[in-house]
Amino acid sequence: MAGLTYRAAGVDIDAGERLVDRIKPLAARTRTPLVMGSVGGFAGLCGLPPEMKDPVLVSGTDGVGTKLKLAFRSGVHDSIGIDLVAMCVNDIITCGATPLFFLDYFATGALDVTAGEAVIRGVARGCELAGCALLGGETAEMPGLYSPGEYDLAGFAVGAVERERVLDGSRTSAGDLLVGLASSGLHSNGYSLAQKALFERAGYDLDTRLDDLERPLGAALLEPTRIYARATAAMLEAGEVHALSHITGGGLPGNLPRVLPDGLVARLDRSAWPRSPLFDHVARAGAVAEVEMFRTFNMGLGLVAAVRPEDAAAVRQAAEDAGERAFLVGEIVTGEGPARVDLP
Amino acid sequence: MAGLTYRAAGVDIDAGERLVDRIKPLAARTRTPLVMGSVGGFAGLCGLPPEMKDPVLVSGTDGVGTKLKLAFRSGVHDSIGIDLVAMCVNDIITCGATPLFFLDYFATGALDVTAGEAVIRGVARGCELAGCALLGGETAEMPGLYSPGEYDLAGFAVGAVERERVLDGSRTSAGDLLVGLASSGLHSNGYSLAQKALFERAGYDLDTRLDDLERPLGAALLEPTRIYARATAAMLEAGEVHALSHITGGGLPGNLPRVLPDGLVARLDRSAWPRSPLFDHVARAGAVAEVEMFRTFNMGLGLVAAVRPEDAAAVRQAAEDAGERAFLVGEIVTGEGPARVDLP
Repeated sequence: MAGLTYRAAGVDIDAGERLVDRIKPLAARTRTPLVMGSVGGFAGLCGLPPEMKDPVLVSGTDGVGTKLKLAFRSGVHDSIGIDLVAMCVNDIITCGATPLFFLDYFATGALDVTAGEAVIRGVARGCELAGCALLGGETAEMPGLYSPGEYDLAGFAVGAVERERVLDGSRTSAGDLLVGLASSGLHSNGYSLAQKALFERAGYDLDTRLDDLERPLGAALLEPTRIYARATAAMLEAGEVHALSHITGGGLPGNLPRVLPDGLVARLDRSAWPRSPLFDHVARAGAVAEVEMFRTFNMGLGLVAAVRPEDAAAVRQAAEDAGERAFLVGEIVTGEGPARVDLP
Repeated sequence: MAGLTYRAAGVDIDAGERLVDRIKPLAARTRTPLVMGSVGGFAGLCGLPPEMKDPVLVSGTDGVGTKLKLAFRSGVHDSIGIDLVAMCVNDIITCGATPLFFLDYFATGALDVTAGEAVIRGVARGCELAGCALLGGETAEMPGLYSPGEYDLAGFAVGAVERERVLDGSRTSAGDLLVGLASSGLHSNGYSLAQKALFERAGYDLDTRLDDLERPLGAALLEPTRIYARATAAMLEAGEVHALSHITGGGLPGNLPRVLPDGLVARLDRSAWPRSPLFDHVARAGAVAEVEMFRTFNMGLGLVAAVRPEDAAAVRQAAEDAGERAFLVGEIVTGEGPARVDLP
């Protein structure tokens, strides 16, 4: 009986090392002046922005949910990492934070170095878009836990904000205007429902061409989540922003009230922004009620800001100048009870 | 045809919310004075230790590998979270950092609220042992990605260290003594090999009683990883510590050289510390060569410090006083070429 080795147990250390070698230059490109060399690679080291007097750390973790299955199904692995960074970074910027660094966790059953490299290339690209450093990561090879060709991804983002500038929504008041930033599609939420509707109910596949969609269905669904870090930095400079909400699972009704004081209502004019025809295809394919659509998907807005009314035009323009499509989508009015969204 | 809902697509938002409700008091117990209330829960907020003049952030991410399978197999879910915190925190303390906060990512196919709560209870317990706050986390329900009853876990730790006190190993020199902290067993590395050897080759199961093991095999294998944060804090106070190495995948030969300058050799006396009989059972069951054992497992030492010789006794004692078993396990000598470990 041959003696067991770690490799015979299903763990290919050499493949892991080959992947690390390929990741290094990708991570190096995201390096910022705050990053310090790390000895031994046990941990990543990063300084704080020297101009900050009393920085508070802001952190968040997220995954990309079953959007992963689209990457598996299509074999397109190089954009799901952008989604991962987006989901984490768009959370921390809601507090007014500047993203500093990011770490990823990539877990698979048997390491495919090429697919793994594509995934991390996306993560590094996301970090570049967010202006933060890819400071570290973990590649886990766990025989049997994942089906062949599948993997999971988790991300962690850390940013910093001057203590006196932490955005906590407390200054939001009736009369504030709501500036919405366009999403690029479903972003990274609702994919279990969307895939069930489109693939199982309607029988579409990745190559299906649907009315009003410029690209095949698979490509439209895989479109990466927008990363709003540069836009929100510009918006915070351009005017008095009282609150920022990242529209994730739970949609507008689930996420906007999270940053509103009780007694306020976010009244949205749903004709004020365009939404991808993709949402309508999902609704039709799955006979999904409109209220369920709004509670599951972003419905066209990836981030919403509550802004002092006299600054709304300038804040909207700043987002546009930073490369986002931005709209005045509603206003804050008074109401009774807990904060809520009104979608007349 | 009934209209699709998110729940019908396999995602149980209510279960997720029930789990969040159960996690809240667990996380609250880990709260430190540096943690700030977070609005809306998009992100976690944490200040920096006010006594630090020029803090550098130190971060790391890790999982627990196929030790997960032991939790699935045994149904014991409340200690694997301690392993998760240990793997991340033991990495960041090698730079001399004080752990500040931790975030976890918990992903499963269909959410089992009871098992999920047990997992997070372990994470919170780990945070208490490490003295850091459980600042946030993500629970992902991804139908189809995980087998029933299975899940994956990723962790992320952030600490801080005064810039001038970053431990980088550069001051390690010939004559330094090596202080090793006992591991509690396999910690969280080598479980693919160990399970293949013990369960497949030898045909043991969780309840098997083996010579010299006080507990059934399953319990011995599930023993949580030691968290060395309090010990290393005490050791750094007690004397001049030049380097700290966390003994993870790759074992002593893979991890000790990571924090040694070239031209130095860590000469270890393998009779200087006890090792759990568990390692011998794995070696025997799998006919695993001694060199492969040392490259895969920690072989009894979870962390090794290189210490100025005149301080070694005090540093060792400080670790003992902090609750660890600590041993003088070797010394640094000069050698040629890249840093390496010598195990005569």
